[in-house]
Amino acid sequence: MRQLQILVAPSGFNNSLESDEVADCIEEGIRRVFPEKSAFIHKAPLYEGGNNFSRALLSFNDAKIHYFDVNSPFYYPTPAYLAFINGGSTAVVDVAAAIGPQFFVDCPDPTATTSYGIGELLVAALEAGCTKIIIDCGESAALDGGAGMLQALGARLIDANGKDIITIGGAPELARLVVINLNNIHPRLRKEICIEAVYGTRSVLCGHNGVAFDDHVLTRASLKQVEDLSLALEEFADVAGQILRVNVGNEPGSGISGGLGTGLMLLGAQFRSRRSAADEYFDFETLFDKPWDFVITGTRIFSSEISKANMPRKVVKLAQKHGVPAIVVAETIAEERTADIYKEGVSSFMTTYGGPAFPQGKTNELIKDAVQRAMRMVQIGISSSQDQIEPQVKGIESAITKLELD
Amino acid sequence: MRQLQILVAPSGFNNSLESDEVADCIEEGIRRVFPEKSAFIHKAPLYEGGNNFSRALLSFNDAKIHYFDVNSPFYYPTPAYLAFINGGSTAVVDVAAAIGPQFFVDCPDPTATTSYGIGELLVAALEAGCTKIIIDCGESAALDGGAGMLQALGARLIDANGKDIITIGGAPELARLVVINLNNIHPRLRKEICIEAVYGTRSVLCGHNGVAFDDHVLTRASLKQVEDLSLALEEFADVAGQILRVNVGNEPGSGISGGLGTGLMLLGAQFRSRRSAADEYFDFETLFDKPWDFVITGTRIFSSEISKANMPRKVVKLAQKHGVPAIVVAETIAEERTADIYKEGVSSFMTTYGGPAFPQGKTNELIKDAVQRAMRMVQIGISSSQDQIEPQVKGIESAITKLELD
Repeated sequence: MRQLQILVAPSGFNNSLESDEVADCIEEGIRRVFPEKSAFIHKAPLYEGGNNFSRALLSFNDAKIHYFDVNSPFYYPTPAYLAFINGGSTAVVDVAAAIGPQFFVDCPDPTATTSYGIGELLVAALEAGCTKIIIDCGESAALDGGAGMLQALGARLIDANGKDIITIGGAPELARLVVINLNNIHPRLRKEICIEAVYGTRSVLCGHNGVAFDDHVLTRASLKQVEDLSLALEEFADVAGQILRVNVGNEPGSGISGGLGTGLMLLGAQFRSRRSAADEYFDFETLFDKPWDFVITGTRIFSSEISKANMPRKVVKLAQKHGVPAIVVAETIAEERTADIYKEGVSSFMTTYGGPAFPQGKTNELIKDAVQRAMRMVQIGISSSQDQIEPQVKGIESAITKLELD
Repeated sequence: MRQLQILVAPSGFNNSLESDEVADCIEEGIRRVFPEKSAFIHKAPLYEGGNNFSRALLSFNDAKIHYFDVNSPFYYPTPAYLAFINGGSTAVVDVAAAIGPQFFVDCPDPTATTSYGIGELLVAALEAGCTKIIIDCGESAALDGGAGMLQALGARLIDANGKDIITIGGAPELARLVVINLNNIHPRLRKEICIEAVYGTRSVLCGHNGVAFDDHVLTRASLKQVEDLSLALEEFADVAGQILRVNVGNEPGSGISGGLGTGLMLLGAQFRSRRSAADEYFDFETLFDKPWDFVITGTRIFSSEISKANMPRKVVKLAQKHGVPAIVVAETIAEERTADIYKEGVSSFMTTYGGPAFPQGKTNELIKDAVQRAMRMVQIGISSSQDQIEPQVKGIESAITKLELD
């Protein structure tokens, strides 16, 4: 038996597991039955919007991931990662993973934060020689308009006395900002490098919908801290606006990732919605060029009624188009009749609730169990096929077994 | 691909489907995926006690079944069947199917019944040349002590005037019985033929636990009818006792199938519990001499805690011993951990509740659906194996498909 070629392309189980986590569960379920030598697994988690864009992207594109320390929003060393796809030519920076809201836990002052760590990741990306950097602008705990990032890259933020403003203790220092000097930023930036800022919502830097009025700030900071941050970011927006020749504070995108968007505008980044980026980076059509034995997709609810844009359904249709059997693992099959599911092109399906009546595990364990059940069935099919080769041996074996046991 | 060899050996789903019905459902589930040319199915429904002994027996032994009319308990022609197993040498008579309680529906007088139809089946069996007759003594609507059966076979029941008593209108006529004359019964009876009466409970003909106090009689007949029947059966027991030299009315077995047991005693039948008969006639060990690709068993509740005598578990153990993968289809897997089920030797399982969340069907449809899901998984395994032969063709095909669809 050659290696089975299995494509794993699930969506997330809403509110419970992201698609890359589901893909990992499916992989484990397969491995319980087919070890590495008997099955090759390619994980291609689906992205259907939401916060796991970069995680899904890395898994989908078999990213090489490098781990090292950068500075946290509160400027102490913290583990982070930089990923490379497309043979190393594209770096992926995950803002939420590096400086996300997890840092707000037990924080002394949510306005005393810096995006310096993102600048450090960009430096590492530049020095690795990539030509494109995708920055997934998820939630950030660094509410400094990207000031820290710019400084890490060599930009100078100068006050009225011509002195560099130290922003690593928080954005309020920017109230004294007079000049942003980009002359000394990393030489490859804005020339050889394309920075793509991928966002969920194009929020703004200033005003009552601005960064200073972030929920995390409002629930943790004093009124004075909020006001100080708000004023400082307005000052930053004014000075940045002189360079960019727009009203940055109200410019859609300037507020994404705690205002990192503003810093990225100064770096000449291109802005792109996650949805649009996903269409380019999650290329399922190409994925089916390989001759998969079968594909396993997963979703919380599978139904023939669910919108045509639903990704697992898209995978099933693509599989059908390419003659590849598609197995669906779902928490719920929202149908009355199984036949409706098969009509959709599904080859077979396994529900997470179809296991033992008193399950102990959480969703992730239930997914692994469901996949294991499915794979054990597939294994029966494989062994049924293989018996073909030596039907006699089996008879002899069972006769021997009988003799020994009788 | 040669034909798959599939053994189907389920138990019943208590209170819902008998084992032979479950086997039929499993067969249909398989056929939805594997037509006759691609799969040979052998149905061997399990017998675990209860009323489906003969049905399971016939299915298990691939019986030849002959349909014809006999007389109903109320002596009108009604469809019945006689089955032959062991190459025709053994006939099987199913009392419940021929003259069972179904005839009590809308009956005018439950004491006016006859077992004549069973005699007709025995005549047919004798004339077909069998050497053994298994009579499955299930519930009967003919409460005549077997008088009608005896008369159909040529026995004479004679009153004080030397006249034959007509019992086809009901047993109360037996109050006038003086002599039972067996001289003219079918010549092959009591010589060449072994009659085996298979019973569930060894009830008695007379007394307060006797046939006249059957629930069906008590709820439908008048007090006088009950008393008349009771007295007549006592008379019948007295006369029969003179031949058999036992107190027939209190002899365990004399009351089985509405007293058919008494008539069978007069025919020299051997009495045997269904459990003991099942051990002989349901020979699972021999069944596994064939090289099955896999076995499908079914049960309402499968659990590693269930008693060792549990038949589906026995099938799984036998399958394991013979190296045959075992698939369990169950309404409930009463476990917390799937691993416990696999430890039992189960290869994989499919639950009836594991299908669509809003199922429309009854248990039988849910079983078919569950088996279909399982078989579609097995099919994926088979097709994965077969790709091995021509991996290139598949690549070409998908390229062509792509071209056409792009």
